[in-house]
Amino acid sequence: MRLRPVRLLTVADLAATLLFAVEGGALGAAARLDLFGVLVVAFSTAVGGGIIRDLLLGDVPPAALRSVAYPAVIAIGWLLVVVLYSGVRAIPAPVLVTLDAAGLALFCVVGATKALDFKVNPVLAVLLGTITGVGGGVLRDLLLREVPAVLRTDIYALAAGLGAVVLVVGRLAGMPRAAAMAVGAVACLGLRLVGVALDWQLPQVTG
Amino acid sequence: MRLRPVRLLTVADLAATLLFAVEGGALGAAARLDLFGVLVVAFSTAVGGGIIRDLLLGDVPPAALRSVAYPAVIAIGWLLVVVLYSGVRAIPAPVLVTLDAAGLALFCVVGATKALDFKVNPVLAVLLGTITGVGGGVLRDLLLREVPAVLRTDIYALAAGLGAVVLVVGRLAGMPRAAAMAVGAVACLGLRLVGVALDWQLPQVTG
Amino acid sequence: MRLRPVRLLTVADLAATLLFAVEGGALGAAARLDLFGVLVVAFSTAVGGGIIRDLLLGDVPPAALRSVAYPAVIAIGWLLVVVLYSGVRAIPAPVLVTLDAAGLALFCVVGATKALDFKVNPVLAVLLGTITGVGGGVLRDLLLREVPAVLRTDIYALAAGLGAVVLVVGRLAGMPRAAAMAVGAVACLGLRLVGVALDWQLPQVTG
Repeated sequence: MRLRPVRLLTVADLAATLLFAVEGGALGAAARLDLFGVLVVAFSTAVGGGIIRDLLLGDVPPAALRSVAYPAVIAIGWLLVVVLYSGVRAIPAPVLVTLDAAGLALFCVVGATKALDFKVNPVLAVLLGTITGVGGGVLRDLLLREVPAVLRTDIYALAAGLGAVVLVVGRLAGMPRAAAMAVGAVACLGLRLVGVALDWQLPQVTG
Repeated sequence: MRLRPVRLLTVADLAATLLFAVEGGALGAAARLDLFGVLVVAFSTAVGGGIIRDLLLGDVPPAALRSVAYPAVIAIGWLLVVVLYSGVRAIPAPVLVTLDAAGLALFCVVGATKALDFKVNPVLAVLLGTITGVGGGVLRDLLLREVPAVLRTDIYALAAGLGAVVLVVGRLAGMPRAAAMAVGAVACLGLRLVGVALDWQLPQVTG
Repeated sequence: MRLRPVRLLTVADLAATLLFAVEGGALGAAARLDLFGVLVVAFSTAVGGGIIRDLLLGDVPPAALRSVAYPAVIAIGWLLVVVLYSGVRAIPAPVLVTLDAAGLALFCVVGATKALDFKVNPVLAVLLGTITGVGGGVLRDLLLREVPAVLRTDIYALAAGLGAVVLVVGRLAGMPRAAAMAVGAVACLGLRLVGVALDWQLPQVTG
């Protein structure tokens, strides 16, 4: 059976949406928000990056709002957090980091692929892929009144950027969509996990 | 005389804009912003929700920027705060809460009505109605560097969501626009005021 | 030789972009962000105002993302900060303030000019010019978790607003584009620098 590209894109996008909704919701619950606040943070984390991308591409209403699949998936993630919060909190940190990295990897290749579909230049496609990956987390941190973690820790946004670069270069070199997405996602996931394992940090600017 | 729907929508929108401009301006003044800062916060509170809604709908430039009526109303609200600040501060809290709830009720039904006019699905119409109601307050709180109040206190966003749900269900069931708007606004206003009076809070997630 | 308007607009825009990228990057470095975080803050400061303007005008993808010139200029500004950080830090404050005021002056006239090209009403053109000037700084301050400086200090946004008003009035009165831009930019620059020199502050609201 041949994978159909559109369906693949949607499945990857929904899977990442669920992962980020659970993660955002858990952080909102840890910040002692009420049930609705947890839902808002889950929603912002899950679809914030994609909505920013779609606004910048002029694809409105954003894909995440056009279909009821995304709100439904976010509602499921929210219910998981609410019903199973003690369970969610008990998930070992390495598992959480891996799930988050998987969401990041899926979002950056999905975002860059969609940008290329809109015929933007390759630099912008990489930028939009990166924004798709990290935008939700930045929104979440702004709502929770924290300096966005992505601005100062770890090889996070860099991993999203690498995944998007690999996707865009692969597509320009003629790779099929599914293959380029797989290679890009693996590149992002790999860099992120190796960075965490070895505690890699980007240097600060000093002088 | 028959109420004309378009005019009704505009009047309700401008009334809510004025209420929110005064409220946002008063909070900005209380945060010791200068005259211009008070204007920016009044502006963001008053039209922030509607601008986010219009960006998501692709209706640009946003309605609040296309006509000079909105900037004019906001300027009036700003002048009221600047000239009558001691008076504004002396307004009893219950009156302020009621005025704010009235603005919220108007915005959520106006936003959901406009979304339906753009032929979006009902779930998105409810979401956009809620965003219209609470978006300005979230922007205001971000500018004033506070965790958005809507994320952690009271039956606020839930009331906006209820108003939007009632409006959308009413319209789908064939109610006239003005009637559905009235019923939705009353539902939002009622839930909000009862919630305040009885000090209802949504539970936090625990475990 | 006759100045060609489009080219003039682009040159002014790119010059202001470079100034703001360096300034934003230096603030990010001072906040101890890592290399990537510094790039994000430089990027947000430099093109944030223009992107918000373009989203509100419906000109998507925003101009700053359509061409690779803007990312290239921002990368240059980022490199300057990273390589020459001790040098950037040693720039005397009056020089920095003047460069920032020059960037502000260019952005407010560029933004208002572009808005007029899109046939918006004059009030909105002034508003969009002001947003183009101060929007990047607001985004930067939100990312660095500060109450946006523009909301509470100095004659800053007011200078951007004055420059935009002068530009719009000049254009409506029939001035050529380049002349109106020059006069508007000088008005903004002058008010800003005089305000700093004399330590002018807008009053707070009291009562």
